[in-house]
Amino acid sequence: MRIAMISPLEMRVPPVGYGGIELVVSLLTEELVRRGHDVTLFASGDSVTSARLEAVCPHFLRGSNRDSNILNMINVVSCLEQADRFDIIHNHTALEGLAMAGLVETPMLTTLHGNLDGDWLELFTHYKGWYNTISYSAKSLLPNKERFVGVIYNAINVDSYPFNGSARETYLLFLARISYEKGPHLAISVARRLGRRLIIAGNVHPVDEEYFRTRVMPEVDGDLIQYVGEVDYNRKRELLARAYCLVAPITWPEPFGLFFIEAMACGTPVVVFNRGSAPEVVKHGETGFVVDTLAEMADAIDEVYRIDRKRCREYVKQKFDAPRMVDDYLRAYERVLSESRNLIDMRMLASPDRIANGSVSLALEATDSDRMTMAKN
Amino acid sequence: MRIAMISPLEMRVPPVGYGGIELVVSLLTEELVRRGHDVTLFASGDSVTSARLEAVCPHFLRGSNRDSNILNMINVVSCLEQADRFDIIHNHTALEGLAMAGLVETPMLTTLHGNLDGDWLELFTHYKGWYNTISYSAKSLLPNKERFVGVIYNAINVDSYPFNGSARETYLLFLARISYEKGPHLAISVARRLGRRLIIAGNVHPVDEEYFRTRVMPEVDGDLIQYVGEVDYNRKRELLARAYCLVAPITWPEPFGLFFIEAMACGTPVVVFNRGSAPEVVKHGETGFVVDTLAEMADAIDEVYRIDRKRCREYVKQKFDAPRMVDDYLRAYERVLSESRNLIDMRMLASPDRIANGSVSLALEATDSDRMTMAKN
Repeated sequence: MRIAMISPLEMRVPPVGYGGIELVVSLLTEELVRRGHDVTLFASGDSVTSARLEAVCPHFLRGSNRDSNILNMINVVSCLEQADRFDIIHNHTALEGLAMAGLVETPMLTTLHGNLDGDWLELFTHYKGWYNTISYSAKSLLPNKERFVGVIYNAINVDSYPFNGSARETYLLFLARISYEKGPHLAISVARRLGRRLIIAGNVHPVDEEYFRTRVMPEVDGDLIQYVGEVDYNRKRELLARAYCLVAPITWPEPFGLFFIEAMACGTPVVVFNRGSAPEVVKHGETGFVVDTLAEMADAIDEVYRIDRKRCREYVKQKFDAPRMVDDYLRAYERVLSESRNLIDMRMLASPDRIANGSVSLALEATDSDRMTMAKN
Repeated sequence: MRIAMISPLEMRVPPVGYGGIELVVSLLTEELVRRGHDVTLFASGDSVTSARLEAVCPHFLRGSNRDSNILNMINVVSCLEQADRFDIIHNHTALEGLAMAGLVETPMLTTLHGNLDGDWLELFTHYKGWYNTISYSAKSLLPNKERFVGVIYNAINVDSYPFNGSARETYLLFLARISYEKGPHLAISVARRLGRRLIIAGNVHPVDEEYFRTRVMPEVDGDLIQYVGEVDYNRKRELLARAYCLVAPITWPEPFGLFFIEAMACGTPVVVFNRGSAPEVVKHGETGFVVDTLAEMADAIDEVYRIDRKRCREYVKQKFDAPRMVDDYLRAYERVLSESRNLIDMRMLASPDRIANGSVSLALEATDSDRMTMAKN
């Protein structure tokens, strides 16, 4: 299959440090190439891939002063301008790909990685392609719309994570972007309540700087509460594999939570608030605890010793390993291609002359005639 | 001719208060309709036009908390999705239209209203359509690029401006967006130096709020220096027609300066810094003074009594009246259509089979073969 894969430019593929979308894009791309597919990756020029790389900028944009609106637009356009070279376009950008899908004939599948609202819903309503979400929770927050191809959970390359069945340190680990949504201020509360050491690792996005400065940094004492900044690939695995448990007091409906499965892959239980995808991804009482209040979170942390760390690893290997995700996406691609062909066939039946003389655009619009695609996976 | 006109959504068409681009779009659209063309205007839903209006949002975006990136993208896409209904697309957006021109077969003319740099140049380099600038100065700031159809100066409906040949008040008028580029802080210096009253009128964009608060407001005393906020259509004309002169100590290369011609139309001389389009638009010694320093500006203001106010009006009527601009744009449209047809013919000669069986995209790319379009108007 000739597949165009459009990544956001925020981070290279695979990411240095934090970058969940780019990590998933990388795993998917590499495995598709390994299985013999012809993949073109539209991403920042410093990306590392065995696919053909097309880059409109040499470096990823996080931390630079380049205009991400402009560059993400050029990146998507640069793919769409050669759309007829691809059987399918798999879009991972939240704005640009959604906006422009109707301008080309090649069908597009968009993976919705975030929870988006406000004017984004306008864009989503207008969107002319197919889509999947990364949890049922994320799907439940969207308005109903046709061309939903199902929930496809994110995955990691489980074997690349070190499993540690014993010999743990005593610290709690907070590992995520430092933002109100991810709740590091609540992790601090829990750690103080329990008198347990907390290590906080994660990047600070410019929009979260004030939150970081006023809610997190004043609590960091370098002793009970430590902040180690954004960590790279190796340091992340090391922190995960040695932690007593991961604490994730999320305050928003987390659409998936890649850090949950990264932790469990290392045999590290996850204690998480019952929001968003948490109960879909963490198995309560088996691979961690899904709780409702800070008091429950504190109690649950004291119960973590009862979780079987080997079971955490097995569970992730079984449900969230990359090959499963790639199988799911390939099935989704086939479905999109088949539905897209059906739409074209219906158009040709409807107006054979206009097609034959080339005067009709086959750009796919959402029509009543393809309401059959509604069922959840 | 079937013309799609894409306006930015920042302001309705025609504007309430400040909105140079939307004013030009309105004049052009209305006159094209009057001459019998089939015009579809893509603009905010509160726009008032005799063209067919297509709106993706009910109200203009300035002052709202709606996401202008998203809505401008949807606006442009909504035009391009029906591109085959138009002979030509006239794009007035600086980002979205430029980015997406190569995705449709209908040729696009973009009017570059602003001076843009940084990553915008990337977008411009990538742009697949034709373009014009609104002054030679603006053109000189761009990298060389084919498909330049010439300089087309902005215009106003001169007859809608009240001419005042005498009976003036003594105030200097500053009338523009309140920003460092437009130089109201320098207008204040000049007014203080001369002990002349200054009226400042104009809107404050969020990005300029600190400048306004620290450089302008502290100088406003309600007596010598007055700030009257953003003014509407009628109040603007009244302020212009009664002013001693317009002062425009611009600190940037103004791409056109619609407020220069609005002033001169009322018989109000313009005293302006020699930057950007100023010497193209203001006739030094005849309709105002084009000067280099604050001291020269102060001296020139004292000489304004020597300018013939009637000559100012005649000059604008002759060079900057709407019908002239519409003639210019119609000539530009014809040129774009003819060059676009030539490109398609060349492609068909190059690969008749691929065209015939419908497998080739006619999306127009910049090629060596159309370098003939380079000459300035």
